[in-house]
Amino acid sequence: MNDHLTHPGGKVRLYVEAPLAPDEHVETSEAQSHYLLHVMRARSGDRISLFNGTDGEWRATIVNVTKHHCVLTCDDQTRSQQNTPDLWLCFAPIKRTPADYLTQKATELGVSVLQPVITHRTIVSRVNSERMRANAIEAAEQSDRLTVPDVRQPLTLEKLLASWPSNRQLLFCDEAGEAPPMGRALAVDAHSVWGALTGPEGGFDVGERERIRSHVFVTPVSLGPRILRADTAALAVLAVWQALIGDWR
Amino acid sequence: MNDHLTHPGGKVRLYVEAPLAPDEHVETSEAQSHYLLHVMRARSGDRISLFNGTDGEWRATIVNVTKHHCVLTCDDQTRSQQNTPDLWLCFAPIKRTPADYLTQKATELGVSVLQPVITHRTIVSRVNSERMRANAIEAAEQSDRLTVPDVRQPLTLEKLLASWPSNRQLLFCDEAGEAPPMGRALAVDAHSVWGALTGPEGGFDVGERERIRSHVFVTPVSLGPRILRADTAALAVLAVWQALIGDWR
Repeated sequence: MNDHLTHPGGKVRLYVEAPLAPDEHVETSEAQSHYLLHVMRARSGDRISLFNGTDGEWRATIVNVTKHHCVLTCDDQTRSQQNTPDLWLCFAPIKRTPADYLTQKATELGVSVLQPVITHRTIVSRVNSERMRANAIEAAEQSDRLTVPDVRQPLTLEKLLASWPSNRQLLFCDEAGEAPPMGRALAVDAHSVWGALTGPEGGFDVGERERIRSHVFVTPVSLGPRILRADTAALAVLAVWQALIGDWR
Repeated sequence: MNDHLTHPGGKVRLYVEAPLAPDEHVETSEAQSHYLLHVMRARSGDRISLFNGTDGEWRATIVNVTKHHCVLTCDDQTRSQQNTPDLWLCFAPIKRTPADYLTQKATELGVSVLQPVITHRTIVSRVNSERMRANAIEAAEQSDRLTVPDVRQPLTLEKLLASWPSNRQLLFCDEAGEAPPMGRALAVDAHSVWGALTGPEGGFDVGERERIRSHVFVTPVSLGPRILRADTAALAVLAVWQALIGDWR
């Protein structure tokens, strides 16, 4: 039996949508097959790991290879399913490269939902959700997650606030105001289910800040005395949340 | 009197090395002059903010303009000097674009020293310290800092550990071990002066991990169950440190 395929960051792991169970056959997508066959030079008998977001992680063996396709058989479950903390990131999309970066980093930092929000000062006119999802899958594969964050379609700020679930709190990263530090806000309310909201380049405008703060589910928080770029604020809020009440404890 | 020059992120602020005091004359560098005259289209009488890392922030008026040079006079101090928390980031440099990104983000997150560290698995053979310093200055200008982080020359891991100051603790972001969560480690020892150490792509090797952990000034910490990229780990440790014992409280 051949070894597990590895790359410099560790074992080769792929996200698939098929069910994973003993002896189940799984066909990889065209892009995954290209990666396996032509980048990793995989051959029949090689083993990789698979996960699908619900059935844990499985060791699987490549059993059939054609020029463009790869079929694997599930051997055994190596990790049972564990869910990522339930933390939504609602962010105003920024220019292209930072958005890729943000998706990748937020996935590593354990976000469960990525929700683009269109605000008054949002410069980006279009969000490439397919590209965001591809970035999220790649980051989930590489960061050892057993889930892929849910990439939502963009919403306007108004729609986001109007449709906000009643059982979820919203951490509002308010760069302009006199909000309490994030650590203090979470110490008071560590048991809620949370989302976080970060603004666009240039921040939310005065009317938006007032509307956001008027909702009972909103907790405004400060991220310190320096001005953070939109993507820095988003990553910082996720890291601090994980350290204080998430799965870094 | 003309208005303060602004860009979409706020007031124009420049870092200079000259002393700042009432009626002091300051000449901007060639790159800054180009920015002021040809990007911002500044003219005599326009005002900007200046800081130099020691004299606080000053409002200054452009008093003399030639094709390539700008001379300003300091008007009044708008903020007294405040120091950034004393937190060093020791990081194994990674590929070019992420290093720029890391410098920028670490500056926004309030790092005081950026120390590149050469480890066994470090792929990057050369660190462009000038470029790092330029990135750090730009991020300090835009993030409203009154200081610029000190960009140090690269050291090998051995030299870093051998020359580590006896009064400073080192948070070792240990992705491979069973280290306690960062929040717990800092709760025990919130009064020390700290540095943080993050590894290269692929992590520290076994011998390096043992050598690092053998020092009394080292506190190994975990950043959760997912594998973080080198730059994600560095940004996360800075954000969590600021939230728990830095100036975000």
